[in-house]
Amino acid sequence: MTICAFPLAIPGAPSGGKPDQLHDHARRLFPICRSITGEGIRQTLSYIGEYIDNFHIHHIGSGTQVFDWQVPLEWNVRTARICRTNGEVVIDFAQSNLHLVQYSTPMRARVSRDVLQEHLYSLPDQPDLIPYRTSYYNESWGFCVSEHQRAALTDAEYDIEIDTDLRPGVLSYGEVRIPGKQADEVLFSVHCCHPSLANDNLSSIAIAIELVRALQAGPARRLSYRFVFIPGTIGAITWLAINRNTVDRIRHGLVLSCLGDEAPPTYKQSRQGDAPVDRYAAYLLSRWPGAQIVPFEPYGYDERQYCSPGFNLPVGCLMRSRNGTFAQYHTSADNLDFITPAALAGSYRMIANMIAMMEADTTLTSLNPFCEPQLGRRGLYKVIGGTNTTEAEPGHAIDQMTLLWVLNLADGTHSLLDIADRSGKPFGAVMAATHALSKAGLVRANAD
Amino acid sequence: MTICAFPLAIPGAPSGGKPDQLHDHARRLFPICRSITGEGIRQTLSYIGEYIDNFHIHHIGSGTQVFDWQVPLEWNVRTARICRTNGEVVIDFAQSNLHLVQYSTPMRARVSRDVLQEHLYSLPDQPDLIPYRTSYYNESWGFCVSEHQRAALTDAEYDIEIDTDLRPGVLSYGEVRIPGKQADEVLFSVHCCHPSLANDNLSSIAIAIELVRALQAGPARRLSYRFVFIPGTIGAITWLAINRNTVDRIRHGLVLSCLGDEAPPTYKQSRQGDAPVDRYAAYLLSRWPGAQIVPFEPYGYDERQYCSPGFNLPVGCLMRSRNGTFAQYHTSADNLDFITPAALAGSYRMIANMIAMMEADTTLTSLNPFCEPQLGRRGLYKVIGGTNTTEAEPGHAIDQMTLLWVLNLADGTHSLLDIADRSGKPFGAVMAATHALSKAGLVRANAD
Amino acid sequence: MTICAFPLAIPGAPSGGKPDQLHDHARRLFPICRSITGEGIRQTLSYIGEYIDNFHIHHIGSGTQVFDWQVPLEWNVRTARICRTNGEVVIDFAQSNLHLVQYSTPMRARVSRDVLQEHLYSLPDQPDLIPYRTSYYNESWGFCVSEHQRAALTDAEYDIEIDTDLRPGVLSYGEVRIPGKQADEVLFSVHCCHPSLANDNLSSIAIAIELVRALQAGPARRLSYRFVFIPGTIGAITWLAINRNTVDRIRHGLVLSCLGDEAPPTYKQSRQGDAPVDRYAAYLLSRWPGAQIVPFEPYGYDERQYCSPGFNLPVGCLMRSRNGTFAQYHTSADNLDFITPAALAGSYRMIANMIAMMEADTTLTSLNPFCEPQLGRRGLYKVIGGTNTTEAEPGHAIDQMTLLWVLNLADGTHSLLDIADRSGKPFGAVMAATHALSKAGLVRANAD
Repeated sequence: MTICAFPLAIPGAPSGGKPDQLHDHARRLFPICRSITGEGIRQTLSYIGEYIDNFHIHHIGSGTQVFDWQVPLEWNVRTARICRTNGEVVIDFAQSNLHLVQYSTPMRARVSRDVLQEHLYSLPDQPDLIPYRTSYYNESWGFCVSEHQRAALTDAEYDIEIDTDLRPGVLSYGEVRIPGKQADEVLFSVHCCHPSLANDNLSSIAIAIELVRALQAGPARRLSYRFVFIPGTIGAITWLAINRNTVDRIRHGLVLSCLGDEAPPTYKQSRQGDAPVDRYAAYLLSRWPGAQIVPFEPYGYDERQYCSPGFNLPVGCLMRSRNGTFAQYHTSADNLDFITPAALAGSYRMIANMIAMMEADTTLTSLNPFCEPQLGRRGLYKVIGGTNTTEAEPGHAIDQMTLLWVLNLADGTHSLLDIADRSGKPFGAVMAATHALSKAGLVRANAD
Repeated sequence: MTICAFPLAIPGAPSGGKPDQLHDHARRLFPICRSITGEGIRQTLSYIGEYIDNFHIHHIGSGTQVFDWQVPLEWNVRTARICRTNGEVVIDFAQSNLHLVQYSTPMRARVSRDVLQEHLYSLPDQPDLIPYRTSYYNESWGFCVSEHQRAALTDAEYDIEIDTDLRPGVLSYGEVRIPGKQADEVLFSVHCCHPSLANDNLSSIAIAIELVRALQAGPARRLSYRFVFIPGTIGAITWLAINRNTVDRIRHGLVLSCLGDEAPPTYKQSRQGDAPVDRYAAYLLSRWPGAQIVPFEPYGYDERQYCSPGFNLPVGCLMRSRNGTFAQYHTSADNLDFITPAALAGSYRMIANMIAMMEADTTLTSLNPFCEPQLGRRGLYKVIGGTNTTEAEPGHAIDQMTLLWVLNLADGTHSLLDIADRSGKPFGAVMAATHALSKAGLVRANAD
Repeated sequence: MTICAFPLAIPGAPSGGKPDQLHDHARRLFPICRSITGEGIRQTLSYIGEYIDNFHIHHIGSGTQVFDWQVPLEWNVRTARICRTNGEVVIDFAQSNLHLVQYSTPMRARVSRDVLQEHLYSLPDQPDLIPYRTSYYNESWGFCVSEHQRAALTDAEYDIEIDTDLRPGVLSYGEVRIPGKQADEVLFSVHCCHPSLANDNLSSIAIAIELVRALQAGPARRLSYRFVFIPGTIGAITWLAINRNTVDRIRHGLVLSCLGDEAPPTYKQSRQGDAPVDRYAAYLLSRWPGAQIVPFEPYGYDERQYCSPGFNLPVGCLMRSRNGTFAQYHTSADNLDFITPAALAGSYRMIANMIAMMEADTTLTSLNPFCEPQLGRRGLYKVIGGTNTTEAEPGHAIDQMTLLWVLNLADGTHSLLDIADRSGKPFGAVMAATHALSKAGLVRANAD
C-alpha cells in the first residue's frame, strides 16, 4: 500500500491543504491549453489570482534580451486539425490540446501521406497514448498522435489546417511575496507552461495556491516567502534576469513538480548538495518509506537555471515520481486520474513541514555556557537522583536528554538540525526543548 | 573468559598498580557513608592524603555561588531507621548506608503505612537489592529498601527516626598536582561522593591513589598531572569555577569511573570527539577484545561539566562496564565482590599506557628532510641490498620500515600516533624508531 | 586471459609504442652489466642517446656530497669466477652478470668451502634461480648462485678470482627535456642501474625511449616533459641535489618500473595521495580489470626520494607486477621471456593516456555563468522538446548531458577530471564537450 500522507508533523507547519480542494484546482485548470506564452498561461495566472492576495502578473515583451536568450514570440492556437480530403476531421486539437506540437507555425495545405508522416510524433511502445512535444526555438509544425491514430492515416493525401498565431506579444508570469520578519526569502518556483498534463504540473500549481493561502491567512513568519508561477526555462531565465541583484536574499528554494501521483517523494539536491534545504529534505524524506534523494544534475526543471554557476542558489527540486521515470510522463495518460486528492495532500504536508523546519532552524547561544545550569530549580529536571534514566517524570513534558543536548550544543555553531542529527532526537523534540530553555533564559536563538 | 589485564605495554608507562593493593583501598573505604558533603567525604579525602604527597583538601562554604549553582548545605547522618510502633527496628541505616535517601531531612514521626510507602524506593525487578537514591536539591526524606523489605512492611503505622543534620557547612574536595617539565596538564577527575558502592566509584579512587603514588615516585615527566577527588556535579562545577582561568592548560583529561568490574573497557569520547585523548583511547581499546568506544552525550559523569560549551575541554570518560548498563549499578550489589583485584589492575595498566602515549606523542621535524639520510653508515640499515624485505637483520632491533616511515613523516605536522596510524606500525615501534633517529641526530621532537 | 593493452583511449595521447620496437630495445640492452656507476650504465645511456634528441649525459665525480650522501667510487668488472683448485671454472660472471654481488671488492685467494659458503647468496625456495644482490656501501665480496650450484660446491677449497675496479670515477645519468608552452614539467624517472634484469628495469627504459621519441616527433604540448635515466637511490638523490631549486616546477611525476610483464598495472600513490597524478592514475586504472592502487609507503623505488618530506613532490610509481611481489623479482628469471611485446605496448599506452589527461586537464570558467546559454541556436542542442532524453540526436556528436555538466561546473574551481568524476561521464567526453563549448565562446580553459 502506498503512503500518501506525510508520517510526521513539525510544530508550526502551515495548516490547510485539503485533499479535495487541491484536486479541484487541478480539475478546473486541466482543459486549458497552456504554453510558454499566450492566452492559456494568462488564463491560468488569472485563476491563481482569484485565490490569493497580492498576486502580481508580469508581462515581458517578445524580443527582450534575458541573459543569453530573447523572450520568444507569443503563440496562440485557434484550431488545428488533420482532415481527409473529403473534409472528414481525423485528428483535432479540440479533442486534445496535446495533438499539436507546441509553437507549430500556421499553415493550410494538402500534403502527401509521406510528408505528413514526417510531421507526426507517436509512442510505438505506448500505442494508446498521445505524446507531448514542443518546438519553441525551431520554426516547424507537427502533430502528436497515438500509434493507433498514426496507423489509421492510410490515405494518399490529407489536408492540414493549423490556425495559430506566432507574433510579437508578451511572456507572462505571476509572483507573490508573503513578507516575514526578515527579508531573507524562501523561493518556490512552479512551472505552469504545460497544456493538459495533470501531474506535470497542475499538481504543483494547486499545492502552491493552497500554500500561499495558508501562509497569507496564518501567523506572521520569520522568513519571507516568494512563489513564482512561470513558464519553464525561459520563464525562470526571465525572472532571474529581472531579479538578478536581489536573488542573494534567497536562503532556501524549491522547484515544485509532479507532486500529485502516489509514489513516495523524490528530492533532487541543489548543486551545493549540502545546503540547509538539502538537509531539511533529507531529514523529512528519511522518515518516508521508499522516498529517495537524488544528486543534482544539470537537467530536469528550473533548478538548472537557479543552480547555474553564476547563481548557484540553494534550490532543490521536490517531486513524487521523478520526471522522465514514469510511464505517464509527457503523455495523455498524465491526466486527472493519475493524480489523487490524498497524494496531493501528502505532498502539501511534506512541504508544510519543510517550511516549519526553515522557520525554526537557527543556531543557539547558551546564556549559561560554563557547566550545566541547575535545571532542577527551574522545574526542568527530575527530582530524585541516582536513577538510570533521563526520561521525563510525570508532569515533565520535555525530554530531559534533549534539554541536555540543546544546552551542550548551544555554542553558536550548531543549528537545531545539527542538534537533532547529533543527538538522534526528533527535530520537534529539539524545538520543544529549545523553547523551554529559551523561556527559562538559558539559550538565545541567533536567528531571531 | 574475560580479559582483565591490558594486553599491550607502551614503553614509559608508570609501573605500580598491584592488584591486592588496589582492592585493599576499596575494601577500607567501603564502609564510609559518603555524600556530596559531610564527614564521609572528608574521611575519604583524609585516607587518600595518607598515601600521597602534596595532597590539598579544599573546603568551600555552603552558599558560595559557583556559576549557576550554590554550594549546598552540609549533610550528616547520625541514625536513620524505620521502627514498628512496639520499638522493633525493621530498616536501619546502620545496616546499610544505602537505606537512607541522601540529603533526607531530619524527622521523627509516626506515619501511616500509606504515607511510608510513598517515601520508599525499591527495585521490583531486582527484589533482593537496595537501590541508591539522592534528593540533594529537593528537601524531602525517604528510605531505599529491597522489594522484599517493602513487602514485609504490613503494619498500619511505623515510627520514622531520621537523625540528620542539614545545615551550613562546607563542600570538600582534594587535589594533587605532579609537576612536569611543562605546565600543560593532564587532568584526572574522580568522583568520591557515593556511599558504599564499590565499582562506582571506590574502584577509581583506588586506581587514582596508586597512579599518583607511581607518578610521584617515578621519573620526572614531560607533562604535569592533576588529580581531583570531588563530589560529582557540584564538585566539578565548584572546581571549574575556582580554576576557570587556568583550565586552558588542560591538554588531555579523563573522568575515571566504574573501573573495577571484569567487563572490557568502555571509553566515552570527549565532546570534541577527535581530541588526542580520544585517539589514544581508540588506539589502546582497539587492542582489547570487546572494548567499546561510545560517542559523547551530555549525560553521565563530570565530563558533562568539563565538556559544557563554555569549556569544551578534551576530557573523555573511562570505565569498564558503562554506567547505567549493568545490573549492579546504583544498588547494594555494587559491593566488594563485584570488583576484582585483577580487573582493577587491568584498568590501572590501561591508564598507565595512556599516560605513556601522552608523554611520548609529539610531532617530529626531520633534520635531514631532503631525500633519505644514509642510514647504513649510521648502523641503521641492512647491509645487503636487492632483497625483498625491510625486516631487521640480526643485530638490528629497530624495524627498518618503521624508521623509514618516521623519517618520511617527520615534517612537523604528523604526530607519533599519526605515524603509527598511517604506517600500521605499533606505537611502541614508532617510539623506538623515533628514539634511534633522534639519537642519530636525524629528527627532533617538537614537544621537548 | 590477461589484458595487456589499455582498454581506453584519451584523445591527444602520444602515438607510437610499437610492441616489437619496445621489446627490441630490451633485448639489445639485456646483456650489459649495469650498476650504479661504471661502463655498463654509460653504455646504456649511449644506447638511449642514439634514439632521442637533446639527450644530456651528466658525470658526477666520486666523493661529491649530495645531501646526506657522497657519490660512491666507480665500480667495474673484468672477470669474476669461482674455480676448483684444479682450475676448472664452476661459477663464471661471464655466464651471468648476476653471479657477482655488485660492488664486490677485488680479490684473488684460495678459500675453504666454509668461508666460501658465507659469501654465497642463493634462494632455497627457488633452487634453479640466481638472485641479484648488491653491497654498494659495505666493502665486501660475494657470489650469487642457484641453490643447485651451491649444493654442488663440495670441494674442501676453491680459488676465488674477482677482477674488479673500485676507485674514484664518476656517477653518470642521462636527461632530456621536451619543452612545452609552459615551464611546468612532468617528470618521468627511470632507474637503469640493474644488470641483466628485463622487467626491472629494461622494460621502463624501452618505454621511456619511445615516449620521448613520440613527444619529440609529435605536436607541441602544453606542459614540458623531463625524463631522467638514473641509477636508483644515489642517482635520484644526486639529481635532486643538483636540481634542488627548480623541482617546484614539477607538476606531475611518475617513477617507471617493471612495466613489461603481463599482470594488470599497479599504481603506487604519491605521499600526497590525492595529487592530480594520483587521480589520473585512479581514473585510468579503474577501467583496467585487476589493476590495483596501493598507498604510498617510504620503501620501493625513487619515489622514496621525490616524496621525502623536504620535497613531497607529486610523484607516484607505475608498475605492472609490484616490486617484491612476483617470483621472478631480482632473480635470473626476470629475463627477456618474462616481458612481452604486448605488455610493453599496453604499459606504453597507459602512460600515453595519462599524458593526454595531464595535457587536457584544467579548470574552466564559464563566459555565460548566469543561467544556461541557449545551446539550440548554436547547433548544440536537440530540436524537439518534451522528450525524455538528453541523448544526442543524429548529427550531434557531443553528448548533450556532458555539455550541460561542463557548463554547470565551469566555475573556475572544477577541473575536467572533477567534472568527469561528478558527472560520471568519460574524461574523453568531457574533453569533447569542453572543446565544443570553447569553440562556441561559452567557456575558457584556465590553463591555456
